[in-house]
Amino acid sequence: MTDDLPNPALLPAGLADLLPPEAEREAALVEAMMAVFAAHGYERVKPPLLEFEDSLLAGSGAAVAEQTFRLMDPVSQRMMGLRADTTPQVARIAATRLAQDQRPLRLCYAGQVLRVRGTQLAPSRQLPQAGVELIGGAAPAADAEVALVAVEALAAVGVADVSLDVTLPTLVPALMEAAGVAPPLRQALARALDRKDSADVTSIAQREGGVLAALPALMAATGPADGALAALEAAELPPTARAIAENAASVLAAIRGLAPALRITLDPVEFRGFRYHTGVAFTLYGPGMSGELARGGRYLSQNDEPATGMSLYPDAVLRAAPVAAPRPRLFVPLGADGARFRAQGFATVAALAPEDTPLRLRCTHELKDGAAVPIAAKD
Amino acid sequence: MTDDLPNPALLPAGLADLLPPEAEREAALVEAMMAVFAAHGYERVKPPLLEFEDSLLAGSGAAVAEQTFRLMDPVSQRMMGLRADTTPQVARIAATRLAQDQRPLRLCYAGQVLRVRGTQLAPSRQLPQAGVELIGGAAPAADAEVALVAVEALAAVGVADVSLDVTLPTLVPALMEAAGVAPPLRQALARALDRKDSADVTSIAQREGGVLAALPALMAATGPADGALAALEAAELPPTARAIAENAASVLAAIRGLAPALRITLDPVEFRGFRYHTGVAFTLYGPGMSGELARGGRYLSQNDEPATGMSLYPDAVLRAAPVAAPRPRLFVPLGADGARFRAQGFATVAALAPEDTPLRLRCTHELKDGAAVPIAAKD
Repeated sequence: MTDDLPNPALLPAGLADLLPPEAEREAALVEAMMAVFAAHGYERVKPPLLEFEDSLLAGSGAAVAEQTFRLMDPVSQRMMGLRADTTPQVARIAATRLAQDQRPLRLCYAGQVLRVRGTQLAPSRQLPQAGVELIGGAAPAADAEVALVAVEALAAVGVADVSLDVTLPTLVPALMEAAGVAPPLRQALARALDRKDSADVTSIAQREGGVLAALPALMAATGPADGALAALEAAELPPTARAIAENAASVLAAIRGLAPALRITLDPVEFRGFRYHTGVAFTLYGPGMSGELARGGRYLSQNDEPATGMSLYPDAVLRAAPVAAPRPRLFVPLGADGARFRAQGFATVAALAPEDTPLRLRCTHELKDGAAVPIAAKD
Repeated sequence: MTDDLPNPALLPAGLADLLPPEAEREAALVEAMMAVFAAHGYERVKPPLLEFEDSLLAGSGAAVAEQTFRLMDPVSQRMMGLRADTTPQVARIAATRLAQDQRPLRLCYAGQVLRVRGTQLAPSRQLPQAGVELIGGAAPAADAEVALVAVEALAAVGVADVSLDVTLPTLVPALMEAAGVAPPLRQALARALDRKDSADVTSIAQREGGVLAALPALMAATGPADGALAALEAAELPPTARAIAENAASVLAAIRGLAPALRITLDPVEFRGFRYHTGVAFTLYGPGMSGELARGGRYLSQNDEPATGMSLYPDAVLRAAPVAAPRPRLFVPLGADGARFRAQGFATVAALAPEDTPLRLRCTHELKDGAAVPIAAKD
């Protein structure tokens, strides 16, 4: 290799190889989570990685339009997009090929999505996703189900002790709408809420009064769900905001009923980052500093069907999940047969030439008198 | 929806949704085959779907260059390709990130590949692939291993009774080279061999004589491996072709030693369709008319490392594999808990609202006195 050739190890920024043993761990995690989805009646669909831009970016797909790679289809001469999110594709399937199926539809998916640019916090441009969508059901119990199925999927791969963060992305817009807030103030208020600047929020709320007066107390109540719900209950809210608060209370009661021990926080005034959600929105955090493991919530699917769903991030789950003991590797000498040991959970690694030694083949075990015995570390 | 909008169900030609239950079946097949690979010591890697064109199309990647979608990376301003084959990416990983690992390396992968155009026989432009690569081993036993691991993977998903078709894509070129055949005749001979036109091949062989005289007998011997090997053994071959024949005999002996009952055919004069293979090449056919399930064989990996591998086609395997009984679906009334039944293998489908009936939720079973009982078909 000469210096003027590009280094073949160099991949585009944000695109990476997953190597052993992580690639196998990630695949195993995904299938274990999908098994939980299937056990709750979610049926798997597999939309293609590429489809026409106009169907890919319809509905909730608009939220990722600027993050979507486009390319020309030489067959149809039309623009195609490489999916940046799977939810819009599942919405398309529900509205077209499964239009005649009874509701609610429970669908699940696992696959890769690609993004034009990474962010500083999330530099990856290829991300695995595994998720559930419940389409055609408006009940608070549906939101509770998708949140808890995600929690159970995480528990199935060893990530217990998660916390569920609930936000109501339509509440603040409903308050501003009811208060008739003009655009410049709307932006100032949005910024203050986004920065969690309580002094600024309080000063705006006191100056404007009316329905905005509720904001400082709601902001202060952010935290454990019970306290935040009590603050919502006590606040003076216009009818649209009251309906949102009551729906949140119903969803949280349904979750509590099924998972009394789950740690739940509620941030009533957070509204950024959920661009197409129309009701409660969820984020699942792993224990410690392991970060966001899943996101979801209520939205409108195609043809304005009520829908709710959760998308899990297997790359983040991989970092949060415990590492299983590596598979033991049994050296099988030239001409010997390892079938019996594969049935016991060994990877059998066959010598194919005289130079293939247990050390070269990174084996942990070798055959002695027909038994698999560990190889001493010093050899 | 108005008539002047494109039909959102319309996907680009060759791109399709996999729906329930096929999407789950395909995923289960892939993971079952990957488990066989892992049990033989093949470690999973997951290269990205996109990488720089120049590394993606290096080596064996050149064979799929014209089938590779390209797009501009806005970050690096360099061209990227959407992979049309996974083998070149595994070769890159072996030559770069795993360059220091002892040989042979056993790696496996599963994922999607995309093609610019489908063919009449294979219209799909997105294809799943799952395969093994054994890099850095030149022994005939390595070729035998990859072929038999693929056979075992197919058996693991219920596709038994496969047949292994062996070809020697370098044999005819070696004979033509040794005979000093001029380009026009080379093309005529290639065409005649490709059409299996024995009259034409015989007439050329008789006219030219020399090393080409062996061709009619080799062509006639195509069929069960033993007969074809005997014809190769009996033929008068120049040294390069003799070495190819002897290697084939060694590989087939190694396969026979491990799988005496496997049906093997050998076509010594077939040489099309394997564009980067340097030794024996394999095609696995399913029983009946189920077609090609896998392809592979010996090639040179990056830095001219000897390598061999097999790529299985999960979409074809899905058509050939037996269909398992569908998962029973148990209706769980509002407020009841299905956990016990999920542990027994049921999909539990929860009612979320009063209108959710067993019929609407397509359930096969309902709870009666705490037991899951089948729902009578007429209801």
